[in-house]
Amino acid sequence: MDIAERILSGDIRAAARLIRDIEDEIPESIEEIKKLYPFTGKAYIIGITGPAGTGKSTIIDRLTYHFRKEGKRVGIITVDPTSPFTGGAILGDRIRMQSHSTDEGVFIRSMATRGQMGGLARSTIDVVKVLDAMGYEIIIIETVGIGQDEVDIIRVAHTCVLVVIPGMGDDIQAIKAGVIEIADIFAINKCDRNGVEQLVNEIETLLEMKKYGKDQWRPVIVRTQANIGKGIDELAMQIYKHRDYIFHWQKSEQYKKERARMEFLNIIEGMIRRKVKSLINKKLDEIVIEISERGNNPYIIAEGILGKAISAKD
Amino acid sequence: MDIAERILSGDIRAAARLIRDIEDEIPESIEEIKKLYPFTGKAYIIGITGPAGTGKSTIIDRLTYHFRKEGKRVGIITVDPTSPFTGGAILGDRIRMQSHSTDEGVFIRSMATRGQMGGLARSTIDVVKVLDAMGYEIIIIETVGIGQDEVDIIRVAHTCVLVVIPGMGDDIQAIKAGVIEIADIFAINKCDRNGVEQLVNEIETLLEMKKYGKDQWRPVIVRTQANIGKGIDELAMQIYKHRDYIFHWQKSEQYKKERARMEFLNIIEGMIRRKVKSLINKKLDEIVIEISERGNNPYIIAEGILGKAISAKD
Repeated sequence: MDIAERILSGDIRAAARLIRDIEDEIPESIEEIKKLYPFTGKAYIIGITGPAGTGKSTIIDRLTYHFRKEGKRVGIITVDPTSPFTGGAILGDRIRMQSHSTDEGVFIRSMATRGQMGGLARSTIDVVKVLDAMGYEIIIIETVGIGQDEVDIIRVAHTCVLVVIPGMGDDIQAIKAGVIEIADIFAINKCDRNGVEQLVNEIETLLEMKKYGKDQWRPVIVRTQANIGKGIDELAMQIYKHRDYIFHWQKSEQYKKERARMEFLNIIEGMIRRKVKSLINKKLDEIVIEISERGNNPYIIAEGILGKAISAKD
Repeated sequence: MDIAERILSGDIRAAARLIRDIEDEIPESIEEIKKLYPFTGKAYIIGITGPAGTGKSTIIDRLTYHFRKEGKRVGIITVDPTSPFTGGAILGDRIRMQSHSTDEGVFIRSMATRGQMGGLARSTIDVVKVLDAMGYEIIIIETVGIGQDEVDIIRVAHTCVLVVIPGMGDDIQAIKAGVIEIADIFAINKCDRNGVEQLVNEIETLLEMKKYGKDQWRPVIVRTQANIGKGIDELAMQIYKHRDYIFHWQKSEQYKKERARMEFLNIIEGMIRRKVKSLINKKLDEIVIEISERGNNPYIIAEGILGKAISAKD
C-alpha cells in the first residue's frame, strides 16, 4: 500500500508522515495529495481567528466537545505559535487540551512556521485536504489572524469565527483592517468583563457601514465565556446556521468557481515552488557566490535559469 | 528615457508608477528593477515592527525628523494597514504624518495587501530596491509584525526595532513566538505608563535564555515616549551602534552570502509567479469550470500545464 492508501485506510502514522512531507515541501507529497483529492470535499472547515490571549483555544476545546457529542470526528490544525494545543502555552492549558489526545475521533496537528513567502498558507491548505480525505467531518483551523499569510489560510474555511474580548483597546484597530472582512461570526469571549456593550456597538457600527444585501449573510455576534462553557451551544448553532447559508449559496455557480479558482492557484504555485527548489538546489551555493563576491546582477542570473527552464507551450 | 532612467534622475512620478506595477506583479516591472539593481545597496534599512497601538508610527515620525536633521533622505514603506501614514488612523495622527509630505527628502509609500501567498513580502522587497536606487539613505519599513509574511518582510532590514508597551498582557506571548528572534532593539514606548520594569524584566529573562556569544549582538532595550520625543536620540544612537556592528559583520562572507541567498530566492520566485500568471491567465476561466463543474482533479490539471511548460535544463 502506498501512503495515500494507508491514510485512506485510517493509518494515523502515515498521515503524520505525509503532513511532515508537505511542510518540508517534499516534491513527492504532491503525488499523494493528488491521490487523496477524489476523497475530499466532505469536511466542513471552520476558521477560528483573533489576537493572542482572547481564548481561541478554549473556544476550540469546548466546540470540539460539542461536535464530539454529536458523534462527529474533528480535525484541528493550529497555525498559532501561541496556541496551548502545541505552542508556548501555560502548563494548565496544555494539559486540558491533551484530554482530546486520547480521543481517537480528534486529530490535532500544529503547523510549523518553517515555510517562507506564503509557504505556510499553501502547506496548511494541503494539510486540510489530508484531514478531509481521512474523514474528519469538522476541520478547525486556528490562527492568530493578523498577517496576510493568515488571512490567506482562513480563506479556505467555510465559516470564519473572529474571537475578540472586551477592553482590547487599540487592538480592535488591527483586526478591523484585515480580518473583519472575512468574519462570519464574532465571538465576544470573556464576556463577564466590562466593556462588552461598547465592543458590541463598535462591531455593529462597522457592520452597519457595510450594507448587506437581503440574500447576503450579515455577520452575527455571539457572547461566550468559554472557560465555563457559556455561549458555546449558541456559537455552534450559529456556525450551523452559516453552514446552511453556505450550502444554499454553494449551489450557486459563483461560489463553486471562486473556491475552485483559489484552490487551483494554490496548487500550481506549490508545484512551481517545489520545481524551482529542485532546479536551483545544487547550483544555489555557486549562484550565491556569484552575487555576493563577484557582484553579479541576481535578476540576470534568475532570468538565465528560468529562460530555458520555462517556456510557454500554448 | 525609460522608467528606470527617469527614476534615477529623480522622477517621483515614475517611481510611483513602477511601485504600482510591482504591486500588481506586471511582468515588465522586473525589467526596470533589473536596470535599477546596479544602483542599489547603499541604503540602510530599518524595520519597525510591533502590535497595533504601540505607537510605531509616532516613533517613525520622530526618527524621520531626527534623520532629516542629519541631512539624510528618508524613505518610508508601511505594510501596516492600521498605520496613520496611510491606513485607518484617527484624523489627528494622519495630519501629523502629512507634515513630512511637503518635505522632498521624505518619500512615504504604503503597500496594499493585494498580494497573496507571500506576494506582499516579495513586492515590498522590490519596492525597497526602488527607494534604494532613488538615493534614500535610510529606508524604514513599518509592519504589524505578527504574521509570517511580515517576518519575511522585516528580514530584509539591517536593523529591526520591536516596539512594545507596558501592560500589553497576553500579547507579549504572541510577539515572543515569532518576532523576538529578529529584534535587534526593543523600544519600550509609552514608558510613562505603569509596568515598564516588569516588561524590561520579561525581555531580559528572554534574552538571558538565549546565551549570546561575545562577538554577537545582544539586543538592547530603549525606553521611549515618542509622543513627546523622549528617548528618540537614544534610539537613533542604538540603531547606529547596531549599524556599526552590522558593517563590521557585513565584511564576513557568511552575512553577505546569507543576504544574497535570500535576495536571489525572492527574485526567482517573483519571476516564476509572473510567468505562471501569464501562462494560465487566459485559460483560468476554463480550468475553473473543469474543476467546479466537471469535477476534474486540479492537481492533474496543474501538472498538465507545468509538465510541458517547465522542463529542467541542466
